[in-house]
Amino acid sequence: MTTQAPPASSGRSGGRAARRAARAAPLAAHLRPVRPGLQGGQYQALTQAGMERIHTAALDALEQIGLADAPESGIAHLTGAGAILGDDGRLRFPPALIEDTLASANREITLFGRDPRHDMTLSGNRVHFGTAGAAVHLVDVLRRDYRECTVQDLHDAARITDVLDNIHFLQRPMVARDIPDNREMDLNTIYACCAGTTKHVGTSFTEPAFVPDAFRMLHLIAGGEDKWRERPFVSNTNCFVVPPMKFATESCQVMERCIEGGMPILLLSAGQAGATAPAPIAGAIVQAIAECLAGLVYVNAVKPGHPAIFGTWPFVSDLRTGAMSGGSGEQALLTAGCAQMHAFYGLPGGAAAGIADAKLPDMQAGWEQMCSNVMAGLSGLNMVYEAAGMHASLLGFCLESLILGDDLIGQALRCVRGIEVDEDAVSLETIRATCLGGPGHYLGSDQTLNRMQTDYVYPALADRLSPKEWNERGKPDLIANAIARKEAILAKPSAARFDTDTDAAIRQAFQIHLPR
Amino acid sequence: MTTQAPPASSGRSGGRAARRAARAAPLAAHLRPVRPGLQGGQYQALTQAGMERIHTAALDALEQIGLADAPESGIAHLTGAGAILGDDGRLRFPPALIEDTLASANREITLFGRDPRHDMTLSGNRVHFGTAGAAVHLVDVLRRDYRECTVQDLHDAARITDVLDNIHFLQRPMVARDIPDNREMDLNTIYACCAGTTKHVGTSFTEPAFVPDAFRMLHLIAGGEDKWRERPFVSNTNCFVVPPMKFATESCQVMERCIEGGMPILLLSAGQAGATAPAPIAGAIVQAIAECLAGLVYVNAVKPGHPAIFGTWPFVSDLRTGAMSGGSGEQALLTAGCAQMHAFYGLPGGAAAGIADAKLPDMQAGWEQMCSNVMAGLSGLNMVYEAAGMHASLLGFCLESLILGDDLIGQALRCVRGIEVDEDAVSLETIRATCLGGPGHYLGSDQTLNRMQTDYVYPALADRLSPKEWNERGKPDLIANAIARKEAILAKPSAARFDTDTDAAIRQAFQIHLPR
Repeated sequence: MTTQAPPASSGRSGGRAARRAARAAPLAAHLRPVRPGLQGGQYQALTQAGMERIHTAALDALEQIGLADAPESGIAHLTGAGAILGDDGRLRFPPALIEDTLASANREITLFGRDPRHDMTLSGNRVHFGTAGAAVHLVDVLRRDYRECTVQDLHDAARITDVLDNIHFLQRPMVARDIPDNREMDLNTIYACCAGTTKHVGTSFTEPAFVPDAFRMLHLIAGGEDKWRERPFVSNTNCFVVPPMKFATESCQVMERCIEGGMPILLLSAGQAGATAPAPIAGAIVQAIAECLAGLVYVNAVKPGHPAIFGTWPFVSDLRTGAMSGGSGEQALLTAGCAQMHAFYGLPGGAAAGIADAKLPDMQAGWEQMCSNVMAGLSGLNMVYEAAGMHASLLGFCLESLILGDDLIGQALRCVRGIEVDEDAVSLETIRATCLGGPGHYLGSDQTLNRMQTDYVYPALADRLSPKEWNERGKPDLIANAIARKEAILAKPSAARFDTDTDAAIRQAFQIHLPR
Repeated sequence: MTTQAPPASSGRSGGRAARRAARAAPLAAHLRPVRPGLQGGQYQALTQAGMERIHTAALDALEQIGLADAPESGIAHLTGAGAILGDDGRLRFPPALIEDTLASANREITLFGRDPRHDMTLSGNRVHFGTAGAAVHLVDVLRRDYRECTVQDLHDAARITDVLDNIHFLQRPMVARDIPDNREMDLNTIYACCAGTTKHVGTSFTEPAFVPDAFRMLHLIAGGEDKWRERPFVSNTNCFVVPPMKFATESCQVMERCIEGGMPILLLSAGQAGATAPAPIAGAIVQAIAECLAGLVYVNAVKPGHPAIFGTWPFVSDLRTGAMSGGSGEQALLTAGCAQMHAFYGLPGGAAAGIADAKLPDMQAGWEQMCSNVMAGLSGLNMVYEAAGMHASLLGFCLESLILGDDLIGQALRCVRGIEVDEDAVSLETIRATCLGGPGHYLGSDQTLNRMQTDYVYPALADRLSPKEWNERGKPDLIANAIARKEAILAKPSAARFDTDTDAAIRQAFQIHLPR
């Protein structure tokens, strides 16, 4: 199974040595084997006819059932756009209104990082992976324990995300349970995330009244409202519906204020198949599509073309207990089907994948996280949320698992990149030179050496030692290595921290819980 | 996240109670949420143009480079069919010979189990998962150790496979290292496998001279040569090539004898990208296709229409070291691309997936095994070999991992089954009844209750408890539970064991190492 190292020399070793040296240098970003925004779409869970049927059913649901509980302001916006308010208080959406919205909605949006190299362009089947969620526990892997999570844990997650190549954005994965005041919690969430990473940040608001303060803080971080509006680096994760088919009144009010302040909106519909959404996978997708289409009409009624992510985000129930199962195959299918519907509409979209039901980063966690992540990527999902670190069906977040997720998602991204059938790849000359009078193997061939860094992903922590080497090196443990990497990352100062003046200004204006 | 249990009663609870009782009964095999032979193919790693380019390159390689080292008998068979023997001793294959073979080869084959309910029909994109390999170590999960594996370990693997729903066949995964005599090892391998499972068995032969004894044993097990030939329940895993592009002389001789005895052939080409096959993924596929096409011509020259599995089975090198990396994303792509080429030719095919590089059944093992398994399934691979239990890039086999693989593959199979967009699934009535004056949730709806068993897969060992329940139950450990299940399985007598007379006859004819 194991083969010897490449042969050391050949008549052309001078040029080869130079190439070897060149290969030791870091690759330019565009030559790296995997990168944010790779094109998926090779996997299609739904047929064209299936997508059209789901679309029709969603239109029917919007026209005949509609959504209840819109706030007054939302009723005004939506009836102004053409929705019909029924005697039962539900807003119904004529198909023409949906089609008009689809025709005019923003189809290519950029989610900015504070550092421009982390900007993400959402369009087509471009794939990005990141965190998300609202876990209330941090997983302590050494004690095999769950404890309430803190704003420091959230900041640590941001700092770790900042240095992991394959975690492309940080949506708030944990709730700061140590800050009882909700306004302070919301503001400190933004601070803890942005002070930890220059990647794009997603966050939520408990109440509409907290939004203006958040913008004040974001303007301080950006260096002015104009700078913020030019490159908004935080988006609003907005659970604008309470499935099935009800607007979340306060979240809609949050959404209106965020739109006004120039913040991109993630229209998040989080039904649970068999509980708050139909049990059949296709039915859960129908409802999620209907709800997000209603949300899209809403956003575009408030401000035409405002950047919105189509967040069909249905979850799975274990129907034996009604409990959620984010790690199931059914979840992977739900997300894959949703991703394909986003492409059907040509809308930037996001959904959940990478959730483990496993309580700890064990074998189950590995298979659960990979299943939905690789399928989401192959489906061409623009934003794969909750892709790393998430355990216990979203109740626990694990920093070590986040770190291992970087390897796991790197592998998934390699799969998304796919198989390139170019002329060098299928070159008969390489096979001929090897087989006919050649060395009889490809170990030292130019083709092999050229492909070594551009075609192959090498994990940071995943172990590829032979049993003999593994034994000789004291049987390295995956989790112990992840802990060591976590400690090494957190031992360094955050590269994303604010300059002294900005930090002082923020701390003067707001009660910041993280120590200076 | 966790929702309450379904509401207890309704006006129609009598009928519902009856349906609840019906659901408690085991489902008929055809109603089970997953089963052997589900149709994949929703994921297409290659474009049509890419497949055609790979096919052309393979034809060119066969015509211009050809294969060396065929045995005399093979040269006679192949030149008789139209291959051309060059002065360099290589056999070259005119494209017309390949096309003729493709036109007449067996396109739908059945791999029989000793028990007919385990028969597998290989055609189209029907997917089956099973073991395979030649591991030399057994993984001791408690001691975190690798030790040499024995014929007893092999028999245990067979017995465990026999009771796992989602492991559909047993190809010999381990070498019996405690039997130094190769003839005895080959014969005891068949005994240990067949005495442990009535599922289809795959095996290898060290030398052509050992094949006749194997048939003597198989005729005894079957109850006569005619019974064996009617339903051959063992196939020959035949590494008929030494990549790149050389026949494995002795294995070819084995193959000829197996064909004569009526045993299906797995034409296994196991190149290693970057070492014994080209480094680009597409190039490794070209070579594997060329080699297997040569093998297919060979089989059909010996006996037209003989059942053969197109075993393009390329592996991946970690190009930093030359060592194999079966757990990589590149491996998953190689296998997916090969699966699609099988469908391109309309040939029954197999390849490797589910291999872990991880030494133990840890998180890395989970993500590695799921990545290639789910992609192989979605690609519609007929035979997914090495799908469970395989660690250290094929050097170690782990019984606990095999057991956990049943859950992992069950989940992958659920993904293969896909999303059914039928009229009940997208029913507006269910949504309407829930939202308009209904309970506002789907927990107790008829649709939910009907889909509970047919649409949802429930893992045996994977844990879905909430952190609170998990804590209350003493934090159950995945590996400890797998060990317990292993012990429970092995504590019972093998359901596949031979009747007393047959066993006595076999033991009289051969030196059987397993105790009675």
